[in-house]
This record gives sequence, C-alpha cells and structure tokens, in this order.
Amino acid sequence: MKIAIDAMGGDNAPKEIIKGAVDAVNEYESNIILVGDETIIKEELKNYNYNEEKIEVIHTTQIIENEDKPSMAIRKKKDSSMVVATTLVAEKKADAIVSAGNTGALLASGLFILKRIKGIDRPALCTFIPTKKGISILLDAGANAECKSKNLEQFGIMGYIYAKKILKINNPKVGIVNVGSEEGKGNELTKASYELLKEQDINFVGNIEARYINEGDINVIVADGFTGNVVLKLMEGVAMTIFDMLKDVYKKNLKTKISALMIKDDLKNLKANLDYAEYGGAPLVGVNGNLIKAHGSSDSKAIKNAIKQAMECSKENIIEDIKSYL
Amino acid sequence: MKIAIDAMGGDNAPKEIIKGAVDAVNEYESNIILVGDETIIKEELKNYNYNEEKIEVIHTTQIIENEDKPSMAIRKKKDSSMVVATTLVAEKKADAIVSAGNTGALLASGLFILKRIKGIDRPALCTFIPTKKGISILLDAGANAECKSKNLEQFGIMGYIYAKKILKINNPKVGIVNVGSEEGKGNELTKASYELLKEQDINFVGNIEARYINEGDINVIVADGFTGNVVLKLMEGVAMTIFDMLKDVYKKNLKTKISALMIKDDLKNLKANLDYAEYGGAPLVGVNGNLIKAHGSSDSKAIKNAIKQAMECSKENIIEDIKSYL
Repeated sequence: MKIAIDAMGGDNAPKEIIKGAVDAVNEYESNIILVGDETIIKEELKNYNYNEEKIEVIHTTQIIENEDKPSMAIRKKKDSSMVVATTLVAEKKADAIVSAGNTGALLASGLFILKRIKGIDRPALCTFIPTKKGISILLDAGANAECKSKNLEQFGIMGYIYAKKILKINNPKVGIVNVGSEEGKGNELTKASYELLKEQDINFVGNIEARYINEGDINVIVADGFTGNVVLKLMEGVAMTIFDMLKDVYKKNLKTKISALMIKDDLKNLKANLDYAEYGGAPLVGVNGNLIKAHGSSDSKAIKNAIKQAMECSKENIIEDIKSYL
Repeated sequence: MKIAIDAMGGDNAPKEIIKGAVDAVNEYESNIILVGDETIIKEELKNYNYNEEKIEVIHTTQIIENEDKPSMAIRKKKDSSMVVATTLVAEKKADAIVSAGNTGALLASGLFILKRIKGIDRPALCTFIPTKKGISILLDAGANAECKSKNLEQFGIMGYIYAKKILKINNPKVGIVNVGSEEGKGNELTKASYELLKEQDINFVGNIEARYINEGDINVIVADGFTGNVVLKLMEGVAMTIFDMLKDVYKKNLKTKISALMIKDDLKNLKANLDYAEYGGAPLVGVNGNLIKAHGSSDSKAIKNAIKQAMECSKENIIEDIKSYL
C-alpha cells in the first residue's frame, strides 16, 4: 500500500509531516511518497532511521498557502505538493493522499482531480467525535456550507458505510442533528432530509438533539456542513474552556494543588480521549479516491494517525461499497 | 412591580413554581400574581411564611400540556394559566410574565397575545451562556427554526440593547456564529446577515467561530434559531459529558477518590458556573411585553432567578429602547 503525503501543507510542515511519515513506515506496513521540496525533505529525512525503500520523494516547486483562494490555487499551482500528491491517487500511483494544508484547496483538489463518485452530488468531510461510549462520526463537518436534503441523504448513506467498515459497527445508527428528537422537528432542511433518509436501506433512527450527541448512542451524526462545523468546533471550544477553568480551580490553593498532582495522569488521559485530533484526520467521502484531511495544526502523531486512517480506508475499499450501494 | 407567574407550567409545577414565587417576594421588592388552580395554589402557599399582600392568586381552570399543539392550545385553552397570565401583561395588569410551560405555546402566547414590536419581524429567545469571562447572551436560542437575514439583523440589534441594559456592558460586542471569522465565510444566511449588521449603529464585530464562543470576548452571539438551539444544547451536553467522565476518573481508585474529596466544593462551584439554568430564564425579545421563558425543568431557585430577570427587564424598559432604536 502506498500513501501520498503533502509534505508542505500544514502549520508544522514540513518537519512534523516528515516525522509522522517516518513513524508510520516504522510502525505500519506502508509505503510513503513524500511530495514537496526534495532538498528540504531529503535533508530532514537524514535525522531518522527507517527503511529507505519505503519512502519515496517526489519533487515539487510550489506550495499552496493558507491565504490562497482554493479553486484558483489548484488551477494555477499545478506543481504544488497538494495537487501533485492528489494526482498520484487519481492516476492510481498511490492508494490515498494525506494533507494538513489549506482545507478549501484540498476539498477542491478532491472535487476536481479525484472527482465525485457517480450518484454523489456533494462529498463530505467525515470526522471522528469522542463520546462517552467511544467514537462516533460526524458528516458533513464543513465541506458544504449550503446543503439540500438530497445531500444529507447521501451523507447518511456514506456515513453508514464508513462506520460499518472503519468503526466495525455491525448496523450503525444514523441520526440527523436537530433541535428535538421527534419527527417533524427542525427547519425545512432537516424535515425534508428525514423523509429521504427513512426510505433508505440503512439504520436511520431519526433526529438527535445536540444535547445527546456526546452520549454516543448514535454512531453516525448527519448535518449540513455549516451545522456540522459549528458542532465540531463548539465541542472543541467547550472542552477547552472547561479544562482551562479546571486548571484555575486546581491552581487555587495548596489543597487543590495536591489534589491536582494526585490525578494529573488520569486528567491527561481524559483530555486526550476528548481530543478529536488524536483520532487522525477527516476523510473527504464521496470522491473517487481516498483523501484524508489532517488538522492544520497536526503534529507528527496526528499525521501518523491520519496515515493509518488512509490505509484503512483504502484497505476496506469504502469507495467501492458506496458505489455498489448507489 | 407586579410579575405574573404561570403556576401550572413546567415539569415541577406547581410546587417548585410556587416556592420560587414565595422566595422571590421574600427576597426582592416584587409583587406576584400566581395564575392557576386556586385550591391547589392556596393549599401549597400555606406551607410558607411571606407577606400575604405581596402574592395574589388568579384562578384558572385549564392547563396547557407539553403535548399540546402550540397555536391550537392558546386558541382553545383561553382559561389556561399561561394564556391568562400573558393576557395580564397585555392588559398592563402585570409588568411581566414568567412561565416554565410548553415552549411553543409560550412563544405563540407572546406572538398572539403580547404581539410583536412594530419593526420586528420575528421575536427571539435570548439566553445567557456561561463563558470564561462571565456571561454572554445568545439569540435566537430556538424560537425560529427558519430565519432570513433581516431576522438576524434584528436579533443583533435587540441583543445589543439587552446586553447594554441588563448585563450593563457599555458597548457590547455583537457577532454572528459562523464557521470562520473572516467576512465572506459561511452560508448564504450568515453572509447576508453580515452585510446588514455592519450597517447598523451597534458594535458589530463580525463573525465568531463556534470554537471561541465560550472564551467570552463577544457579548452578543447572534444565530438563526436552529443553529442557536444546537449551540445551546450542545454546550450543555458537552459539559455534562465531561463532568460525567470526570466523575468516572474520580471513582477509579483510592487515590483519585481522595483527590476528589479535596476538590469537591470547588468542582461543584465550577459546575454551577457552567449551568445556564442558574442564570434564570430566557426572555422572548421583540414582543410588546416582558415574557420570560424559564427552563422546563426549573426548580424554585431557577424560578426565583427568572422572576428577578423579569423584574430587571421591566425596570430597564428594554422594549422602549428597542422601539426607539427602530
């Protein structure tokens, strides 16, 4: 299996991206193609021990910056690490691409280079979210700010397949984020999507009130990309706020400081469990190739996890399952 | 000042509602009209010491249940505690109404009995939300699942006035919940609302990414009622999840149990700070009278807080300020 990596994309590129790739080849049965500035990448690789046959470098001269306009960038920067890495997947020279670069440009790369699966109108970003009972998935996490009911219908189908294959859940429960659980609740979009999803041959369980998402009873959380993105970011924000407030409580006096010391490692674990970046990246489901969007601030560990996820997507052949369902 | 209370509305009615009203007259300079079943209310009042001149009882024979269809209920149940209490405000026999009953019916009561302020197309539920820096307000928290940009524009104006008068913030910052902070981000609704709000004579600071809502830098969080409701409920859900997980951590072994004992009270305080029910109810801003929606599960303390909020709304005369801005 061969994973193409955009070595120049992300806040910590190329250093952390390259380290993540090296860790991945040392840990998993994977081959990596690092795409980016050859001189920099090769210089950086000298710091590590790894099987040199497992990492290939492809030289590119351009970088898509965060400020670049997405579709413009992929049209004008044909020799960018992101475009070239994605093209490797389109040309079947790699099984998947991982990038921590400009989200909009990466979505555009998926759409225009890998192209949509026939029958899918809008691909969706599919993120893991931490819950009390383990991992659920949320889609669309932000690829489409404006959605129609048929888009949510397709998100539900793709999410069902993804959860079944990747989370290994037998008959995953699919629900629409809503203001109440009863049928008929919500806005025009959620009402119409409800009607479409209940006709599908998946385990659609209806609406889920935002309050209960983190309970973990619903495995696949469906939302338009605006709502999904708000949900994802708010979860992160609320968790950060609570841990910051907790830190202030622990700093209060000697007693609380001692209490904090006693529980330090457990709290660290809890925090890690709640950190969705720990679980790898977000695949763009619905395009004709495995594309994983890693968090912009990914460190080597997040990149390694995203590579693992890319390997699983490609091994489980999600795309073929989506095609055959449709 | 006279506050009308729907004594029969809410999960803990009438017991906790009546206790909250008694606590309010004992603590604040307020007169209360308890609206509901006279026999039950008078029997219940016998349990308390209070100045009997300060509580009046108005007898009604009907109750709007949670299952009732909102607009049907207020048309058919003319002698319900909710409709009669709201009518007292419309007829200037009370300065405000507080109810923990059926949300939809209460919104309908506001709309049809108090009626909209001229120039306001849609009234909005305005909730307090806890942040690192104190209290912010969020509107619309769920009155309107479907909104247009002019609705969000009006929510921003009303929220600005509310935060200025009730939170006593000099020049409150107003922002739209969005997927990114830059102008031009988001869906059609947020983009159009941005254009309208920046022309208003308020302190509009642009978009706020959901991740940063609980930082508390923005005082007035504007959203359509669907997004606002999702934000509010998700905040509650994430906080509950984290505290549950924390509880599990503390129960793990002797060391963690001792650590928990040492910090118990501080954690309880933190949890209370994050509990938006502690801050009273949500006024329906934009109607021609002060109407406060208390949480359905309100206990006496929440009712007392909602009464205090009703007194403040009426003292500060928010409605006149909204009228004069428009």
